[in-house]
Amino acid sequence: MVFDDLPTPSLILDWDKLARNCRNMAHRATAHGVRLRPHLKTAKCIEVARMATDGHFGGLTVSTVAEARYFAERGFRDITYAVGISSGKVDELHAIQSALNASINIILDSSAAAIAVSERAAAIGARFSVFIEIDTGAGRGGVGPNDKVLLEIASAIVSRPSLRLAGVLTHAGHSYLARSQDEIRTIAAQERAGAVLAADRLRRHGFQCEQVSIGSTPTVLNSDSFDGVTEIRPGVYTLFDVDQASLGVCGTGDIACSVLATVIGHNRRAGHILIDAGALALSKDISPAKFRDDVRFGLVSYADSLEPIPGLSLSSLHQEHGLISAHGRSLPYDQMPVGARLRVLPNHVCLTVAPYDKYFVLKDGRVMATWDKARGW
Amino acid sequence: MVFDDLPTPSLILDWDKLARNCRNMAHRATAHGVRLRPHLKTAKCIEVARMATDGHFGGLTVSTVAEARYFAERGFRDITYAVGISSGKVDELHAIQSALNASINIILDSSAAAIAVSERAAAIGARFSVFIEIDTGAGRGGVGPNDKVLLEIASAIVSRPSLRLAGVLTHAGHSYLARSQDEIRTIAAQERAGAVLAADRLRRHGFQCEQVSIGSTPTVLNSDSFDGVTEIRPGVYTLFDVDQASLGVCGTGDIACSVLATVIGHNRRAGHILIDAGALALSKDISPAKFRDDVRFGLVSYADSLEPIPGLSLSSLHQEHGLISAHGRSLPYDQMPVGARLRVLPNHVCLTVAPYDKYFVLKDGRVMATWDKARGW
Repeated sequence: MVFDDLPTPSLILDWDKLARNCRNMAHRATAHGVRLRPHLKTAKCIEVARMATDGHFGGLTVSTVAEARYFAERGFRDITYAVGISSGKVDELHAIQSALNASINIILDSSAAAIAVSERAAAIGARFSVFIEIDTGAGRGGVGPNDKVLLEIASAIVSRPSLRLAGVLTHAGHSYLARSQDEIRTIAAQERAGAVLAADRLRRHGFQCEQVSIGSTPTVLNSDSFDGVTEIRPGVYTLFDVDQASLGVCGTGDIACSVLATVIGHNRRAGHILIDAGALALSKDISPAKFRDDVRFGLVSYADSLEPIPGLSLSSLHQEHGLISAHGRSLPYDQMPVGARLRVLPNHVCLTVAPYDKYFVLKDGRVMATWDKARGW
Repeated sequence: MVFDDLPTPSLILDWDKLARNCRNMAHRATAHGVRLRPHLKTAKCIEVARMATDGHFGGLTVSTVAEARYFAERGFRDITYAVGISSGKVDELHAIQSALNASINIILDSSAAAIAVSERAAAIGARFSVFIEIDTGAGRGGVGPNDKVLLEIASAIVSRPSLRLAGVLTHAGHSYLARSQDEIRTIAAQERAGAVLAADRLRRHGFQCEQVSIGSTPTVLNSDSFDGVTEIRPGVYTLFDVDQASLGVCGTGDIACSVLATVIGHNRRAGHILIDAGALALSKDISPAKFRDDVRFGLVSYADSLEPIPGLSLSSLHQEHGLISAHGRSLPYDQMPVGARLRVLPNHVCLTVAPYDKYFVLKDGRVMATWDKARGW
């Protein structure tokens, strides 16, 4: 495949940036003496998983059963499905464990879930390692580190032969909303302290708590201490995006993934350049709007670059149309004739990447490979 | 497949509602003497295409090349690819036409596109029917009905043997933003008048303009007149959604598509019930926010119903987590224990449906079929 002949919209991966992002995180984990269990919900790609685990123990994190199957089928044997488990998913996870000789670790945050899952597991002869999910401030899943129910859940787990208590797990997702590096550091400290406190409480009450698993890209990259932590689970760092750049966690030059699009029209009356990448090709995520008002649905670069063109953004998305608008400048109609190719730097790359079947991987301006990926559920 | 055993998240189609929606639109088109060329970008499904074209001429509208191929491979022979064409898509559309004996009609709104596409078509022996896209107020693609360039584009088309001028086409997408039925009617009148004016101008200047193609679900359902119009291209009416219900174009009882999800946690401290359907399973579209502030990312019903539960909505979506919040009431934790199943009524069904591989079709409370669908590009 020649770059100029790629279909649009399509997903482009810049190999050098991806490799650098993976290397930096792997070094950071090694330097701090923690295991790296990268979250592959972002890239959903076996090649990225291999690069991201290079030099580490090979554990992965995923957020769908389809991803668990995809990575297990391709040789990964220690996978944490990091979304609260329900008994309806037990059969399929057991099938993956059995057929592929893999361990699928599950997470839960209630005795009710532990009981329901253990009963189904026992009925079909399954056994799972379980992390108790801790809420260290994100307010999504998890029990508070000091919650009384933490011990009840641990009791429910250890009393059931189909479950094994592996440790505690937390995700400081609210770090994505921080207004400064200082605030990220504060959240990172809470994330670590909350997870370690929960683990200590379990141990004081006689439970084994081998793993203390934390991590989001912002907190892991800004944390001062990993004391008491055994593993980290960042994900978006592999590809990065405009949201992470706007948060100050990376530069736009670190964004490894983009969407190649074609100019399909000029609407000079309305003041738009139209491209064939819309809401499905990019997602309608507007996360960077928390930090800056000049991004809207994504930034735009020329096809041979990943340098955002100043004063241009995707102001509106329809299902398969993206509308580029200018602010504080005029639209460069002449530099973007109908048929020209552009790249869009995604706002939230996890959502942008998800529906595609594959990446076209670019190195030194050439398409060096096509990489398949997981999708769906 | 038994309904209670369906995996989650998954896409559920209520057959009776789908059939009624399709029948009503087909009758309306017949009653007004216009061809119905339904837009299958919404459902992306061969079974829905068959139901939607029942009693009509069998033409379809699509918005991706993948959809064009999918429907042509399954027997549809007259398909309008209704996104501005670029020469990079000519080879694949020609391959579909040749291999499957289909006509893929294209749309464009500039002489530059006509020239580029005709040159590529001529080079590979392709020929396409072309609609000139008219902007009747949406401000997306298209030339104004009175624009001088309309005639230049027509000249560019008819002077090239690889292209044939089929007519004019418009889409009043701004009807989705209307604040009242009266405003929709006004937009519908502009849509019709603009398309007919453009067609008349072409004819006065000696061009053939056989087809005058208009339509969005809101304008078609609220229009008083189709004089001069030959075909309509609504799409979202097949499934409907919370946005259309909020706009007043349908009732929530007409929504035929929903996402089945499982309760995976209770976070009483934060005041959420968590489900396993998040931003990827639902999309981050918040279109109904234009009309009402109690919807956010979607409405919720119990699994055996499609009646939204008052005072509940999805207040926040993460990649694979949805967070249900209550307003003006308390959260029904006891009615929604961990493991319970719910359905989410989607905000903008076109975006929700897109990444799934299939529908589970429900009739009389039972899963009567699994229908595959197109996806991607």
